[in-house]
Amino acid sequence: MTEAEKARSQMREGHWTGPTVYKVPGFVQCNLVILGKPNAYDFLLYCQRNPKACPLIEVTDPGDPVPHLSAPGADLRTDLPRYRVFENGKAAGDMTDIRALWNPDSVAFLFGSSLTFDHALARLGIPPSEDVWVFDTSLETVRAGRFHGPLVVTMRLMSRQQAITATQLTTRYIYTHGAPIHIGAPGEIGVDLGHPLVGRPLECIPESQIPLFWACGVTPQQAAVHSGIDHMITHAPGHGFVTDLQADRTCLP
Amino acid sequence: MTEAEKARSQMREGHWTGPTVYKVPGFVQCNLVILGKPNAYDFLLYCQRNPKACPLIEVTDPGDPVPHLSAPGADLRTDLPRYRVFENGKAAGDMTDIRALWNPDSVAFLFGSSLTFDHALARLGIPPSEDVWVFDTSLETVRAGRFHGPLVVTMRLMSRQQAITATQLTTRYIYTHGAPIHIGAPGEIGVDLGHPLVGRPLECIPESQIPLFWACGVTPQQAAVHSGIDHMITHAPGHGFVTDLQADRTCLP
Repeated sequence: MTEAEKARSQMREGHWTGPTVYKVPGFVQCNLVILGKPNAYDFLLYCQRNPKACPLIEVTDPGDPVPHLSAPGADLRTDLPRYRVFENGKAAGDMTDIRALWNPDSVAFLFGSSLTFDHALARLGIPPSEDVWVFDTSLETVRAGRFHGPLVVTMRLMSRQQAITATQLTTRYIYTHGAPIHIGAPGEIGVDLGHPLVGRPLECIPESQIPLFWACGVTPQQAAVHSGIDHMITHAPGHGFVTDLQADRTCLP
Repeated sequence: MTEAEKARSQMREGHWTGPTVYKVPGFVQCNLVILGKPNAYDFLLYCQRNPKACPLIEVTDPGDPVPHLSAPGADLRTDLPRYRVFENGKAAGDMTDIRALWNPDSVAFLFGSSLTFDHALARLGIPPSEDVWVFDTSLETVRAGRFHGPLVVTMRLMSRQQAITATQLTTRYIYTHGAPIHIGAPGEIGVDLGHPLVGRPLECIPESQIPLFWACGVTPQQAAVHSGIDHMITHAPGHGFVTDLQADRTCLP
């Protein structure tokens, strides 16, 4: 059994309900969005039009909870530690098993998460930040049908030398958001340091550091929420799906 | 007016009906597939599942012939030099204007063509081959709904040193097929040198050269043909769509 299979097994049995952040290194971790088939075409097109925010790892066939390409032994209804259920665009509660909500027209979208390249950054001497920030921006994504909304970004602070290394490295990780979309000058993309979606508010960036911004997997979730989708299920923040895919393999397109 | 705009204008006016191979350098060239909306979801999913063979540059909204993201001033019904019309899976003739066949549920899929990186290879001292080969392989693509079929590849012959350079370079061109899928040993992927789909039959590869194989944009066309689609329109082979996108820009994901 691989570490990925062990982790999913523990989640399926209900023994692992906590975050996956910095866990199970070496395997691609995914964000999850589950929608009904009637909205799947526009959502798939939204992902195609916004590939840096929505790097698709796999889209399942309607009603089939098995991600045959990225984790053939898994079941997406039970193998995440925690799910978030949305009703009419509002979070309606978390669950650790969504078998009761799965139906024959459910389609699961798996997006590569930047958690995947954090391990690679660490191997290059750029340790995981103590803080992770998520911000809204003033940049609009490209609309597809009912799906639209702002680009959401993650922010990492690092030294100027590390910023170059991190740009080089993440350029290769095209299935987990790729290169940064912006570097320095948060205000230029409408980032308000005092009002993050996730993380502690900041007054300013320390002189010795520079902020790097990557497109964030929260973007497609937000687009679905804003579009007024009746029913949607996602992973709970920080509680991702662990695939069988090798992180260092998916950076070789 | 850019060279791309000039080229499209000539095609629209009917003054350019010939190939685009090695023409309009610097701009991304695309292969085209037009299908009806009822088949668009499965075809889009087929592309997502086979990204090296089907690198999507843009998918238009139903009935809208303007590729707003890759060439906002263009019209996909008139701005290719030559189209091929398929009826019930068979080529039914070529046209230079498809306005009469376009309808409110038509969806156009544009795929980055490897013609795009041929210019970049030339700048690195790897001149365009005198011959271009296209082969069927024994590799199967990943099915999506009714769409399935073999991976089709292009073959280029070069020196062993050039093969390394070409692999490095094309790795970056993820929207125009990316890195080779195979190098040397044609038989290992079921390539029969004596029976190319395009190009002159070969008995063997010269000792001083090595064959490199890239996933080919003929793959999604063949999948559509094999699936028994009633109506489909594509570009005529070698007669691509010239976008406004800078070739050297799309290699920076």
